[in-house]
Amino acid sequence: MTHFFASDNNAGVHPKVMEALMEANSNHAISYGDDYHTRETTTLFQKVFETNLDVFFVYNGTGANVTALQALMRPFEAVICAQTAHINCDECGAPEKHANAKLLTVKTPDGKLTPELIALHLHGFGDQHHSQPKVVSITQSTEMGTLYSIDELKAICNCAHKNGLAVHLDGARIANAAAALGCSFADITWRAGVDAVSFGGTKNGLMFGEAVLFFNRTLAQYVPFIRKQTAQLHSKMRFISAQFKAYLTDELWRKNALRANRMAAMLAERASKIPRIELTQKVEVNSVFAVIPKEWIESLQAQSFFYVWNNETSEVRWMTSFDTTEEDVENFVAMLQSMSAKAVNK
Amino acid sequence: MTHFFASDNNAGVHPKVMEALMEANSNHAISYGDDYHTRETTTLFQKVFETNLDVFFVYNGTGANVTALQALMRPFEAVICAQTAHINCDECGAPEKHANAKLLTVKTPDGKLTPELIALHLHGFGDQHHSQPKVVSITQSTEMGTLYSIDELKAICNCAHKNGLAVHLDGARIANAAAALGCSFADITWRAGVDAVSFGGTKNGLMFGEAVLFFNRTLAQYVPFIRKQTAQLHSKMRFISAQFKAYLTDELWRKNALRANRMAAMLAERASKIPRIELTQKVEVNSVFAVIPKEWIESLQAQSFFYVWNNETSEVRWMTSFDTTEEDVENFVAMLQSMSAKAVNK
Amino acid sequence: MTHFFASDNNAGVHPKVMEALMEANSNHAISYGDDYHTRETTTLFQKVFETNLDVFFVYNGTGANVTALQALMRPFEAVICAQTAHINCDECGAPEKHANAKLLTVKTPDGKLTPELIALHLHGFGDQHHSQPKVVSITQSTEMGTLYSIDELKAICNCAHKNGLAVHLDGARIANAAAALGCSFADITWRAGVDAVSFGGTKNGLMFGEAVLFFNRTLAQYVPFIRKQTAQLHSKMRFISAQFKAYLTDELWRKNALRANRMAAMLAERASKIPRIELTQKVEVNSVFAVIPKEWIESLQAQSFFYVWNNETSEVRWMTSFDTTEEDVENFVAMLQSMSAKAVNK
Amino acid sequence: MTHFFASDNNAGVHPKVMEALMEANSNHAISYGDDYHTRETTTLFQKVFETNLDVFFVYNGTGANVTALQALMRPFEAVICAQTAHINCDECGAPEKHANAKLLTVKTPDGKLTPELIALHLHGFGDQHHSQPKVVSITQSTEMGTLYSIDELKAICNCAHKNGLAVHLDGARIANAAAALGCSFADITWRAGVDAVSFGGTKNGLMFGEAVLFFNRTLAQYVPFIRKQTAQLHSKMRFISAQFKAYLTDELWRKNALRANRMAAMLAERASKIPRIELTQKVEVNSVFAVIPKEWIESLQAQSFFYVWNNETSEVRWMTSFDTTEEDVENFVAMLQSMSAKAVNK
Repeated sequence: MTHFFASDNNAGVHPKVMEALMEANSNHAISYGDDYHTRETTTLFQKVFETNLDVFFVYNGTGANVTALQALMRPFEAVICAQTAHINCDECGAPEKHANAKLLTVKTPDGKLTPELIALHLHGFGDQHHSQPKVVSITQSTEMGTLYSIDELKAICNCAHKNGLAVHLDGARIANAAAALGCSFADITWRAGVDAVSFGGTKNGLMFGEAVLFFNRTLAQYVPFIRKQTAQLHSKMRFISAQFKAYLTDELWRKNALRANRMAAMLAERASKIPRIELTQKVEVNSVFAVIPKEWIESLQAQSFFYVWNNETSEVRWMTSFDTTEEDVENFVAMLQSMSAKAVNK
Repeated sequence: MTHFFASDNNAGVHPKVMEALMEANSNHAISYGDDYHTRETTTLFQKVFETNLDVFFVYNGTGANVTALQALMRPFEAVICAQTAHINCDECGAPEKHANAKLLTVKTPDGKLTPELIALHLHGFGDQHHSQPKVVSITQSTEMGTLYSIDELKAICNCAHKNGLAVHLDGARIANAAAALGCSFADITWRAGVDAVSFGGTKNGLMFGEAVLFFNRTLAQYVPFIRKQTAQLHSKMRFISAQFKAYLTDELWRKNALRANRMAAMLAERASKIPRIELTQKVEVNSVFAVIPKEWIESLQAQSFFYVWNNETSEVRWMTSFDTTEEDVENFVAMLQSMSAKAVNK
Repeated sequence: MTHFFASDNNAGVHPKVMEALMEANSNHAISYGDDYHTRETTTLFQKVFETNLDVFFVYNGTGANVTALQALMRPFEAVICAQTAHINCDECGAPEKHANAKLLTVKTPDGKLTPELIALHLHGFGDQHHSQPKVVSITQSTEMGTLYSIDELKAICNCAHKNGLAVHLDGARIANAAAALGCSFADITWRAGVDAVSFGGTKNGLMFGEAVLFFNRTLAQYVPFIRKQTAQLHSKMRFISAQFKAYLTDELWRKNALRANRMAAMLAERASKIPRIELTQKVEVNSVFAVIPKEWIESLQAQSFFYVWNNETSEVRWMTSFDTTEEDVENFVAMLQSMSAKAVNK
Repeated sequence: MTHFFASDNNAGVHPKVMEALMEANSNHAISYGDDYHTRETTTLFQKVFETNLDVFFVYNGTGANVTALQALMRPFEAVICAQTAHINCDECGAPEKHANAKLLTVKTPDGKLTPELIALHLHGFGDQHHSQPKVVSITQSTEMGTLYSIDELKAICNCAHKNGLAVHLDGARIANAAAALGCSFADITWRAGVDAVSFGGTKNGLMFGEAVLFFNRTLAQYVPFIRKQTAQLHSKMRFISAQFKAYLTDELWRKNALRANRMAAMLAERASKIPRIELTQKVEVNSVFAVIPKEWIESLQAQSFFYVWNNETSEVRWMTSFDTTEEDVENFVAMLQSMSAKAVNK
């Protein structure tokens, strides 16, 4: 079996994106972003987001997050985020290194911050001994596969702004969120009050490349230097921007995300019917979190790799991607059913 | 005219590299380097370099340089390099930010360090007030388009090691150097004593991706964490390693580099015969540095963009790439001749 | 009333320390530690600690902590500590800035780590996405005025070492701990397995200056450079070392600490009898944590300043110091009683 | 002989400063600067400087410099300074570590920048690859014992401001400068256009402590947090501010500096008459740079320690301090004469 449910970054590149890369590969082009493709794609971003945003292409999600954080905060300031946030758990201390950020984390049941949870860290303002809260960072869709509604986003942004904090949205899977909510990117970013976005592409069909978006010129003014110093400036920039052009054209992003979301829903629906499998999070986008019998794991992984989320509780994560087919899901479910049947027969 | 002599990173992607990208785009693959392509390419690197090296793929040259420096030094240590080094002039302070490195720079006529020039900074060892010299960083071929001979490299490495310093080689254009010297990569790296290499690919036909090479397991031991924290770890790693596989197969790197070098030699030979054009550096690889009349520059740039290296002396840089054709050179020379003729006619 | 129960750093300088400063003020002395006083005091430290330790004088507690952490860990590594740890709450992000440390915090009822609490963060070893746990940092006595017993320290050190972590002890109030336990410094540091100590002095009678102690030469080898780069190297070093000489002579440290501890016990004993005052932590050294009626606070602070620890629960902290007298305590208790009486009379 | 000509930080503490420390040592005082002495001294600073400045007490010169730089610049920006600047040569990379500053150094004959020398680095503005020049840092009096005239300072500040750069003055020996120029502190700081000052005290009679001064509220706004995070905030602050109160009262600073300057002039005048001793810098404040026969050095150092400035040229540095007496100078000169006589007699 060559389809993995380990992560959406186990998938390859969408054919339309690959085509765009080939088309971009003609002639010489000025490097570092002063090229036709980058100009076109910048305009396209502004059109799709329905606002005059600033877009900076970078290499990956961690690069996008630390570029955004450096623009939003100073070294003595702090970021409020969920304990499960990618910036806290999966970046090997990149925010601490690049932005010298103290992360003020909050335990959540579902990976989602709320004004109430944020308020736990809204103190110590002006106290020179205390890292000053300056950024709220949320992930949409979250690392737990859950979603912020538009109203929830607005409430968080209001709470942040009222207290002088900026809002960063880690949008590694923002397409899955917008697809699930049936809304535009604008609805879940600047219209809700978000100040900066790490706009993901790689997990939804790109080969490489993410974008950092700012809706406020002043916040964005030093980003070119920050990006370069952070080693996130690509020389042959057209090969990132051309991918995003394809991605934003005719809502390819939404089609890809809808497929991934639908496949996760199908997997969840089927898996939840299998004895001894218990879903642990709402399935709102393209991941399924489930507790399964510990003794199944090794054998299942050998057939189709996936990650154990929590060793102690035997919780696993299955992710679908833009290229997951119904057949892939059926095969995987059959595998689960067979494990379950064996268990029963023992 | 769509061929630029501005930089080798104005060129696109070599067809064989593009092919490799397409071929790599099938099935799912475990992310972050635990995939077939990355394993294969790692083995290929070891074969091509004739030694059991460690290879870490990263995104770009700055990323490769700061990853290597962080592995080789501590924050209170210093790097000796030429004043013209890319790490000093063109990375917006990335070495200072990532490695907290003090750069001890030396003026050189040709971008090349020597043991004598290095010795200018070999003092203050053990003095707690003094940034401790720890790394010698050289660029091969240099930012001035010049070359270190194998003997020159050995002399520098001996000098460094005798004084307890490691040697980092910024090989953004290492292929052009090996091609010009008619030698192997091993000859100008570990056999000469180099400890770590930023191995470039993008400037010689890749779409994105560089590699950091270590010839010493101990120096390399923390690099996986350093790379991740530096935001240089690609998720869909196969798309970097597949490019390098094509690049190292059948010495594609050498063919590309030889072409670029030959075109620079041709351009230099022709241009040097044009009145009022004076070459300022030996043309050993793929760049031509020349002083030209200031009043020519704007008009020439409008026809085919290139960079002014020194505004005051009116020195410019012309670079050739793997895809430069004789016709491209001829067209460019014709342009120069026409400027010269106009000037005479006035 | 000129005696505050706000903090032990509200106290002045012990007369014997002041005397030592005056005595040290004669003749010229080589700066930066190469002087008679520093040599003498270093030897004295080794004698008092009964081992061949390395001692580095620095300016303050935060300076000591970040100097120690930089010696014990690399930027991609993490520190496990209590959520209430000074390095987490009161240093404005200094560990994140200086050591790029991710702090893995644990909620505790009393400011004390245990092997079980530490184990919550003992995972992800070798995973490049995960900040690698490398240091356990404990405070003795803790920020909550509680104490680790020698056995508790040993258990923590064993747990840390078994997992490849080093143990840092923030000893801003280590004298109060040793005094309370009736033991030597050796007993609660290297004999229990501690690797590095921030050895406080200022809170127990010094004017300025702390010391960083290492019991392992290899860990200490780069500290002279780290200290200088961290801006913690004093030029007129004799004026720090002379203070510590007085402090360590005839156990002045123990006398001072015992007094402070005794006064806290007295305050606790008296205060706990006053209606509506409830102690919230064991009083083991020189602080008293208590919940008092919110409406008392402002008026009490106006008479003798102290800090509110938790606004919501109306918890306050009262600290005694080497110079607190029984009369000071009695005056303060009288104040509390008068508040209580007024409340009753209403 | 117990008087050294090695450095002005080999001297002890001025009696009036010691007195102030003793006087400050009574009662309790709120820590971290919210005390009577600090408020008084702040007002005194404003009076002495004849302007409404912000003053932040820190521990040492390196601490003052990096606190100031962090307030004046961002990590991707650069500092223009003389190659001989203390921030470049003697702080073990502290500016690179704390401020991530790239230091753009200039060779000078006498340690002094000029608008012409600064202009060598005034390029690359807006180029994302180039560390952006943001601060000019000058030392007054310089590390070479030379002085900027008021007009020279004004010219530098004008040049800096015209190009959007701020001016930082490292005033480790600003008292010696003001004394030599016969002017006020205001004349050589804000009136000349300086934006921030590292105001030294330790080298001119204090025990410890320096001050960072800002003449612009906006630049100073984040300094409390920067100072704390940089581990430069003293708890028992009154013991720094009390020293400065004594130092600024009745121009103690000027008396001390004048004495040191006069002693250096006397030493220079006498030494220059001794055969084979050649002064290498103008003697404008309290240091004498001289080339002496190499074979004299060891024997002289054994009698009265001093530093060799340049091993190759056999250049040495002799410094006088606030407590140098005519007898000290005469003794030292006699020593030199004796060396010279022996040499002749051979």
